Amino acid sequence: MRILVLGGDGYLGWPTALHLSEVGHDVAVLDNFARRGYDFEMGTGSLVPIETLQSRIRIWHELTGREIGCYVGDLTDADFTYHVVREFRPDAIVHFAEQRAAPYSMVDRKHAVYTQVNNVVGTMNVLYAIAELDPRIHLVKLGTMGAYGTPNIDIEEGWIEIEHKGRKDRVLYPKRPGSYYHLSKVHDSHNIEFACRIWGIRATDLNQGVVYGQQTPETARDDRLATRYDYDAVFGTVLNRFVIQSVIGEPLSVYGNGSQVRGIIEIRDTVRCLQLACENPADPGEFRVFNQMTQSLSISQMAETIARVSPEKVTIEHLANPRVEEEGHHYNVVHSGLVELGLDPHLLSDTLLESLFEITKRFAHRVRPEAMIPTIDWRRSASQIGL
Amino acid sequence: MRILVLGGDGYLGWPTALHLSEVGHDVAVLDNFARRGYDFEMGTGSLVPIETLQSRIRIWHELTGREIGCYVGDLTDADFTYHVVREFRPDAIVHFAEQRAAPYSMVDRKHAVYTQVNNVVGTMNVLYAIAELDPRIHLVKLGTMGAYGTPNIDIEEGWIEIEHKGRKDRVLYPKRPGSYYHLSKVHDSHNIEFACRIWGIRATDLNQGVVYGQQTPETARDDRLATRYDYDAVFGTVLNRFVIQSVIGEPLSVYGNGSQVRGIIEIRDTVRCLQLACENPADPGEFRVFNQMTQSLSISQMAETIARVSPEKVTIEHLANPRVEEEGHHYNVVHSGLVELGLDPHLLSDTLLESLFEITKRFAHRVRPEAMIPTIDWRRSASQIGL
Repeated sequence: MRILVLGGDGYLGWPTALHLSEVGHDVAVLDNFARRGYDFEMGTGSLVPIETLQSRIRIWHELTGREIGCYVGDLTDADFTYHVVREFRPDAIVHFAEQRAAPYSMVDRKHAVYTQVNNVVGTMNVLYAIAELDPRIHLVKLGTMGAYGTPNIDIEEGWIEIEHKGRKDRVLYPKRPGSYYHLSKVHDSHNIEFACRIWGIRATDLNQGVVYGQQTPETARDDRLATRYDYDAVFGTVLNRFVIQSVIGEPLSVYGNGSQVRGIIEIRDTVRCLQLACENPADPGEFRVFNQMTQSLSISQMAETIARVSPEKVTIEHLANPRVEEEGHHYNVVHSGLVELGLDPHLLSDTLLESLFEITKRFAHRVRPEAMIPTIDWRRSASQIGL
Repeated sequence: MRILVLGGDGYLGWPTALHLSEVGHDVAVLDNFARRGYDFEMGTGSLVPIETLQSRIRIWHELTGREIGCYVGDLTDADFTYHVVREFRPDAIVHFAEQRAAPYSMVDRKHAVYTQVNNVVGTMNVLYAIAELDPRIHLVKLGTMGAYGTPNIDIEEGWIEIEHKGRKDRVLYPKRPGSYYHLSKVHDSHNIEFACRIWGIRATDLNQGVVYGQQTPETARDDRLATRYDYDAVFGTVLNRFVIQSVIGEPLSVYGNGSQVRGIIEIRDTVRCLQLACENPADPGEFRVFNQMTQSLSISQMAETIARVSPEKVTIEHLANPRVEEEGHHYNVVHSGLVELGLDPHLLSDTLLESLFEITKRFAHRVRPEAMIPTIDWRRSASQIGL
C-alpha cells in the first residue's frame, strides 16, 4: 500500500513510518517541524539525540534499501496539502500531525487558539483533499483516550447504543475532554464523522492512550534512527517521565492523589496498531473508532511499578494537581477492536522497563530537572513556560 | 443589568438589543458587519431595507431616550474583545456573533474553514476574556437545534441521563450535526462546557430552532429600526423564504420529500428567551442548556401552512435535497427550560403570518428570485455562489 504519514518526524510518526516501510509499504512522511519548534520555545528537548528528518530517511535507505518520501510543509496550507495528496497518491493517510500536548494547549489563550486552529484546520484540509482528489483514501487519524474524560459508565469504542424513554439509537459516544488540546480532537472527530456521512469517505479514529517506551525494532537498528524521548512537564508522557525521574534520582511526581486512571500503550503496539488499521481499512462512508490502548493503570500504580522495577531507590512525591480532573473515578474501557484485527499487546513489564532504564541512563546527563516541574495551571487562564 | 450583545447588527442580535434596552437594561452592541459583507459576496440582501447600525442606534435614542453603546470590531481580534469587556463591564454577554448559515459553510473548503475558525476562535476569545477579566459574567451563547441532528431517541436539553451496563451518568447529549456550520456550534459547546468546568464561569447555551417572523414590538416602532429579512437560499430561513415565495408567486421549494422535522420559534419569542436567560443566570461553573424552540413542524407542514394562509394561490415544489439529512425520522424535543423561566410561546398562527405577508408585499419588488434557488450541494466539496 502507499501510505502517507502526516507528522512523520514526531515521537510516534517516525517509528510508524519506519514500521510501515519495514513491512513492505510504500511510505512518505510529511512534517512542518512544529514539534522541534516547541522545544526552542520552551528551552527543552528530546532526552535522546535525534537526527534531522532528512538524515533519518537517508540512513534508513542505507540500512535497508527502502525509500521513504519526504514532504516538508504545513497542513493548514491547503495548497501544500492538496499538492502532496495529488503527487503521492496514497491509499491511506496516517494523521499524527497535530499539536499533541494538553499542557501546551493550556499555557494561555494564544496556545489554546493555536492548538485548536492548527489541529482542526489541518484535519479539515486533509478531509477536503481526500473528498476532492480521491475519496477512496482511508484516513487513519490519531485521537486520544482523553477525549472521553472520565464518565461514570463504561467507555465504548466511539459509538454507544443508548436506550432512552423506550427508544434506541447508536450514537457517538458523549465526550467531556480535559483540555483545549483534547477538545481539538473531539472537534476533529465530529468533523470527520460528518465528512464520512456526506462524502462517503472512510476513516478510522484511533483514541490512543498514554504511550510509553522509546524503541521499536526498526528504530533500534541504529542510534541515528532513534525517535524523540520527552521528559519535560509539557510534552513528556507520564510513564516516560517517571522512568527518567527514577534514573536521575528525582522523586516521581504524581499529580494529586494519583487515583486517576489512564489507558496506556507501549510504543511497539502503537506502530502495530497503525499497520493493522491501514491494512484493514474502514468501509466507504464508515467512521470507525478504536480505543488504542492495551491496559488501564492509575497514576499511582504507574509510579509504584517504576519504583518497584527501578534499580535505584525511588521516592514518590504528590504535587498539587495542576490539572482539573477527577480522582477516584470509574474507568472501564472497551478496547477489543484492534485485538480483533490481530493486535497482540505488550503489557507493561519489567523487561521493557529495563531497556528503557538503559536508554535513559545513557543520556541522563542531558536532563534539565527543572523542566519536569509542572508550571501550567488549568485553573488559571495564563501560565509561564520556558523556565 | 449591563448586557453586551455580540453580533448586535444581525437579524436577531439587533431586535434582541432593542428588547433588552426597552425592558430597562444597559445595552451595548458589538459587530464586525461580516453579515453585511456576505450580502456583497453573494450579490443579495435583506428584503426589507435596513439602516446602518449607527443610524439605528441614533433613531432608537431619538424615539426612546435610551442609549445603546456601539463597538465595531472582530471577536477573533482578542485585543479588541478584551478592550470591550474591560470597558463596558457587562453582567451578561449575549453571543450571536457567528457565521450562522449552514449552506454558506458548505460552499467549499474556504467557507467551511472560515466558518469554523471564525466561530470557534471568536468564542474562545470571549471565554478567555471572561475568565481573565471577570468570571462572574454570564455568557449567553446562541447554539442551534441542528447540533443534535435527528437521533432516534428524544432530544433532551443539552444533557442526558444514560444507564449503560448497569451504571449511570449524566453526560452531554451526543451530537451529530448536519453541516460545518452546525459542527462549529458543537465545537463551541464543548469548549464552553470545559471553560465552565475549569474556571467556574457560568454559561447558557441556547440551542435555537429555525426562527421566523421579522418584527418585534421594538423594531415595529419605526421603519428605520427594521431588522434584516433574508430570502435567499443561503441565509433565508425556511419559513421566511416560503412566505416570500408565496407573495411573489413562486412555488414553495421543499427540499426532498419534506418529512424532515425542525424545531421553530417566532422572532418575538427569541428576544424574550434572551431576556429570560440574562435575567435568570446560570450558576457559577454551570453549563446550562436550553432548547430555544416552541414547536416542531415538518418542512411539508410549514409549506402547507403557508399555502393555506396565503391570500394568493400557492403551489409547492419538491426539489432534490441539496443537503444530506434524514427524511421520515423521529423527532421529539424537550424544550421546557425556557417555559419554566416564564416564556409564553407564540405558536405559528394566521395572525402572525398575515403581518409577515404585509411586510413582504411591501418590499416584494426587491426580490431577486434566482437567489432562492439552492446551488450549494452537500455531496460536493465545492459549489458556486453569487448567481
